[in-house]
Amino acid sequence: MRAIAENIQSMAGYTPGEQPKGAGIVKLNTNENPYPPSPKVAEALAQIDHSFLRRYPDPVATALRSRIAELHGVTPAHVFVGNGSDEVLSLAVRCFVRRNGAVGAFTPTYSLYPVLSQIRDVAYAECPLGDDFSWRTPQFGSSAPDLFFLTNPNAPTGIAYPFEAVRDFARSFDGTVLIDEAYADFADSNCMALAADPSNANVVVSRTLSKSYSLAGLRMGYCVGPEPLIEAMFKAKDSYNLDFIAQALALAALNDQDWMRANAEKIRAERARLTEALSGCGWRCTPSQTNFVFARPPAGNAPEIFAALKEKRIFVRHFNLPGISEWLRITVGTPAENDAFLAALP
Amino acid sequence: MRAIAENIQSMAGYTPGEQPKGAGIVKLNTNENPYPPSPKVAEALAQIDHSFLRRYPDPVATALRSRIAELHGVTPAHVFVGNGSDEVLSLAVRCFVRRNGAVGAFTPTYSLYPVLSQIRDVAYAECPLGDDFSWRTPQFGSSAPDLFFLTNPNAPTGIAYPFEAVRDFARSFDGTVLIDEAYADFADSNCMALAADPSNANVVVSRTLSKSYSLAGLRMGYCVGPEPLIEAMFKAKDSYNLDFIAQALALAALNDQDWMRANAEKIRAERARLTEALSGCGWRCTPSQTNFVFARPPAGNAPEIFAALKEKRIFVRHFNLPGISEWLRITVGTPAENDAFLAALP
Repeated sequence: MRAIAENIQSMAGYTPGEQPKGAGIVKLNTNENPYPPSPKVAEALAQIDHSFLRRYPDPVATALRSRIAELHGVTPAHVFVGNGSDEVLSLAVRCFVRRNGAVGAFTPTYSLYPVLSQIRDVAYAECPLGDDFSWRTPQFGSSAPDLFFLTNPNAPTGIAYPFEAVRDFARSFDGTVLIDEAYADFADSNCMALAADPSNANVVVSRTLSKSYSLAGLRMGYCVGPEPLIEAMFKAKDSYNLDFIAQALALAALNDQDWMRANAEKIRAERARLTEALSGCGWRCTPSQTNFVFARPPAGNAPEIFAALKEKRIFVRHFNLPGISEWLRITVGTPAENDAFLAALP
Repeated sequence: MRAIAENIQSMAGYTPGEQPKGAGIVKLNTNENPYPPSPKVAEALAQIDHSFLRRYPDPVATALRSRIAELHGVTPAHVFVGNGSDEVLSLAVRCFVRRNGAVGAFTPTYSLYPVLSQIRDVAYAECPLGDDFSWRTPQFGSSAPDLFFLTNPNAPTGIAYPFEAVRDFARSFDGTVLIDEAYADFADSNCMALAADPSNANVVVSRTLSKSYSLAGLRMGYCVGPEPLIEAMFKAKDSYNLDFIAQALALAALNDQDWMRANAEKIRAERARLTEALSGCGWRCTPSQTNFVFARPPAGNAPEIFAALKEKRIFVRHFNLPGISEWLRITVGTPAENDAFLAALP
């Protein structure tokens, strides 16, 4: 084998959640939305003329970025759009981390971040959270990382951090803070104001259409931030990173805020019901602000319950990682799916 | 501005060709196919149920990779599929170039390669071609690059290299040779056999659906190569790099080889006609094996002719680069578009 980069050679790669298929499966393992995307997406899809596909798409997604800018009260120069927020996160690591720099993040958090650091061939600094996965201001020794990934609300814990704590940390931090708000539409509040505030030169907030807009299959994420940082991402992206259809459908989805909000409300109501039901059975649940519940069974026997549920074709997520190996992450489904999950518990 | 990576900070970024819009424009500047994609693509599009988009797509594009494997007589483990061949090329630079390695390529060739090297923060070695842009075996001093991009047929020159020359170079080369065959469907022969041959541990051949399959708007490229190299690319890619719709439509396009072949034949016939007409007016034309003609006007005044054509809303491509600044690259259009181009020449 010749010349495979050392960092790629030695890495394991990211493991996405299972994508089981078939009738009768209850799939509560990858935080997909149980409701379909807006009917406006179906309309936009029906209007696509396949002959347009012979032309390259708009390389800078002008219409889509204008709409996103409008939604968040910024100009399009502050908006980057990516092939899923995966691309946004990956570009952030390439653009905001210097040659001998490092990436930082809390533990536990989204397990993709260390993988992205390894692909970029830089160090990864883990910062412990406080008790019950609560906020604890990251402490760095002499060398702070260039980029800190701050998932808010956090995954897989579901916990949202106080706005003031995030703001003060960003102000004191010398590198770039990327606030990954994949689940923000299910939360009571968010930190977008920090990215939209021109006095913050180092805060980028990312969002995805995969969860609240029910478009995981489309691959569309974006971020809002200071112009020099957005400009750097544009330089490093693939020339035509978003296809013609995805741009059109994402725009249609963003143009139906009511649909997204109504689904988010249904999910929040079910989240409360699931949390209450599990707590009633002695499970420990975090105060989730996301579209999943993070919960520890009374006996801490998460792997066992995970396997028992899988036997019954009910899929949830278990992370065999320090500090959370006794917990399960359960995506909030439809009322019927949630009932099936609760009924199947041992 | 904080912590933007040095290599990104200092780079200019890739400049894609203009995408002018409006009635009456003759667009012969970005090597798009003048004919629409297969009607099977339209059928597949009409069958997409928007509600499926709430689920994540197949992260490893199983059906699509099986079809590609079948087309080229390999197994799916030898096939990687990317969000445009842009993603394939970018991943190759990340995976096949070591920390202090370098990228090599001929001059002139596809102007994206030096940009990818800069994004990866590694050196770029230019190897001169022979007279009339013909093959000349690359020579390296003491340090050969880890990855050599070999565009075949070459862009923007249109010239295809002899199979034996490419094969012998790959055998003698210590790193990975990525043969970028974006235009191979318009050529008399290609080098796919080198990637499919299990005795070659260092040859990867990339293809795109943007040109011959008329799907530039969809973003779909792929490569075939040795299993360890393909495996490295899978580790470094974004988790879900290809959306659900793109996977379905690309599969439909690949399932209609007749449509693609018929369009490629029409384009080859027009290429011959354009070449003959230009040669008759004293232009120097390369023996193109692609869907474009690379030609030098008698007076070498390419920028002037480029501007005069643009005045008449006819777009071709001019590269202000050493050795080719007196040349124009003209995408082969429909017969009517080619006539309009020829009639507009001064």
